[in-house]
Amino acid sequence: MLTISHEDIIKSGGFNIPLAIDVTQRALLAYAAERILYPDKVSQIFDESTQNRINCLPATLFDDKVCGMKWVAVFPTNPTLHGLPNLNASILLSEIETGYPIAIMDATLCSDLRTAAICAVAAKYLAIENAETIGYIGSGEQARMNFLAMMSVRPTIKTCKVASRTSASEKRFIEQMRAFYPQVNFVACNSDYEKAATDSDIIVTAISAQLPILQAAWIKQGAFYCHVAGWEDAYDVPLSMDKIVCDSWNSAKHRTQTISRLYKMGRLTDDDIYADLPDIVAGMKGREHENEKIYFNSVGLSYVDVALGYQLYQQVKEQGLGYKMDFHQQSVFEIDPSKVVL
Amino acid sequence: MLTISHEDIIKSGGFNIPLAIDVTQRALLAYAAERILYPDKVSQIFDESTQNRINCLPATLFDDKVCGMKWVAVFPTNPTLHGLPNLNASILLSEIETGYPIAIMDATLCSDLRTAAICAVAAKYLAIENAETIGYIGSGEQARMNFLAMMSVRPTIKTCKVASRTSASEKRFIEQMRAFYPQVNFVACNSDYEKAATDSDIIVTAISAQLPILQAAWIKQGAFYCHVAGWEDAYDVPLSMDKIVCDSWNSAKHRTQTISRLYKMGRLTDDDIYADLPDIVAGMKGREHENEKIYFNSVGLSYVDVALGYQLYQQVKEQGLGYKMDFHQQSVFEIDPSKVVL
Repeated sequence: MLTISHEDIIKSGGFNIPLAIDVTQRALLAYAAERILYPDKVSQIFDESTQNRINCLPATLFDDKVCGMKWVAVFPTNPTLHGLPNLNASILLSEIETGYPIAIMDATLCSDLRTAAICAVAAKYLAIENAETIGYIGSGEQARMNFLAMMSVRPTIKTCKVASRTSASEKRFIEQMRAFYPQVNFVACNSDYEKAATDSDIIVTAISAQLPILQAAWIKQGAFYCHVAGWEDAYDVPLSMDKIVCDSWNSAKHRTQTISRLYKMGRLTDDDIYADLPDIVAGMKGREHENEKIYFNSVGLSYVDVALGYQLYQQVKEQGLGYKMDFHQQSVFEIDPSKVVL
Repeated sequence: MLTISHEDIIKSGGFNIPLAIDVTQRALLAYAAERILYPDKVSQIFDESTQNRINCLPATLFDDKVCGMKWVAVFPTNPTLHGLPNLNASILLSEIETGYPIAIMDATLCSDLRTAAICAVAAKYLAIENAETIGYIGSGEQARMNFLAMMSVRPTIKTCKVASRTSASEKRFIEQMRAFYPQVNFVACNSDYEKAATDSDIIVTAISAQLPILQAAWIKQGAFYCHVAGWEDAYDVPLSMDKIVCDSWNSAKHRTQTISRLYKMGRLTDDDIYADLPDIVAGMKGREHENEKIYFNSVGLSYVDVALGYQLYQQVKEQGLGYKMDFHQQSVFEIDPSKVVL
């Protein structure tokens, strides 16, 4: 049993964008090939008013011979009450030859990488080939990780525009991202969301708005729009796109994202969804011409987290990092009777 | 984050029978008072033919402010293919103030203690007060742990009979248990199951038979019968008893235990179940007279495992045992850009 911290993962070189994209793509293919068990998540909500909760998301990857579980705490009260992030995640892994646990790990990086990598895989297949301009609405950690991942699949990007609630956060985004990609022309939009979206080949919304910020009129022909958060685009955005692709439409249906809302209103049906991402990666469907506007909706696929967690675990283990513990040596009744309290 | 091995738990004095019974009783009361979240388990079966699987059983204890998950691997192929036990279990615990994980622990002892403690709590309320004779069908670890727990709630027991498939295993049971209770008169029954059951105030079947071993005619008036395994008693055993009590009838219904089989055949209905154990412990129902024959069916309640796991965690922590690790110190984007692979 290996206990693995965030720092162990970083030390092992786990903050690896191309690797995360590669693992994500392979996991999507394995899912398309029915080589993954992906049961429904279990949500335990501790308080209906705060929605503080822990979600338990198990998955099994037959090709990797591993069964895992992502354990995600979502505590909206954390930032204000405790100065802590509202989300933390762990992953537990067991091998499925004998069923023994092999690792417990902090999964914050894993989650962040996975969210970005799924969008990057979608962009790889659905954005125009020579995308040159990307526009961000939102500039937080999700937006930043997303940018690093998008650059990996579309190195043709020359301009990155960013619009956020404050110009300070736009600047922070640009300073940090410029260290990675000094050749890109970064544009701070001073909270002008229209400016970030207009003329962008790729648009990404990664903002906790719950407001229709992005407008259909801002989206150019041929654009790929990546919707990461909840409700941040006007209803006519998905309705005006040529294709809607999901990571998992079945999961999205029951959420409160823009297309979920339209579905519940009866303004969007199963038939309006072009494909799920695994089918795109498997080559069954894809972009058909340069002018198509494609909407990609991401809810998150925890089997990808388990796949990425397993990859990161292997690296940490190979490098002798983490803390290794023999979880169980003696059988229960091999012990000294004097250790038993009757 | 504390990583806790079986050996840490033993060292901390976790093999504590009265404590396990006390924690179990409090957990049952908390469940009766609706202070526990207990969602359905998630089962991932890797192979329909072997039934090798991992079950994921989450639960939240509001009074302890803890949310946990028992992760149980059941691998029927382990003993023959790998010389390993067919079952191993781990528990993951998070506090629910901020949602952070606090411990991952080996839960083998915890599972064994819990199984026995639930039976002991049932016996405490449902066996006759001055029970003097207990009979075991089966002599493995479950039977042995069960005996230690039963002695704690019925110290009046003077005779313990044990019948198992081989007399060698009966002898092992007796040798081990005599070290704990030298004053008890142990009787090896030489695989004569009838002898173990006849005239016993308490009968326990803890054997993986899948055969109707225990017969109704062997059970005396006033007896308390504790059914731990699957199908090990004749159908007329539950049908001839005065009361049937379950730890959880709703869970039992969908299993393959004796009463589950009768239910599926339509020979037993919801109305034939007198009560679930939490209602017994809460004092709402119980034994009504000395001659009643009472059947207790245990499927296992994983919220009790989580409660016991939390108790054991606290002891281990107080004694400075286990391995403490800071799971996450830096935020993802606080890291040195040179550590990022693009």
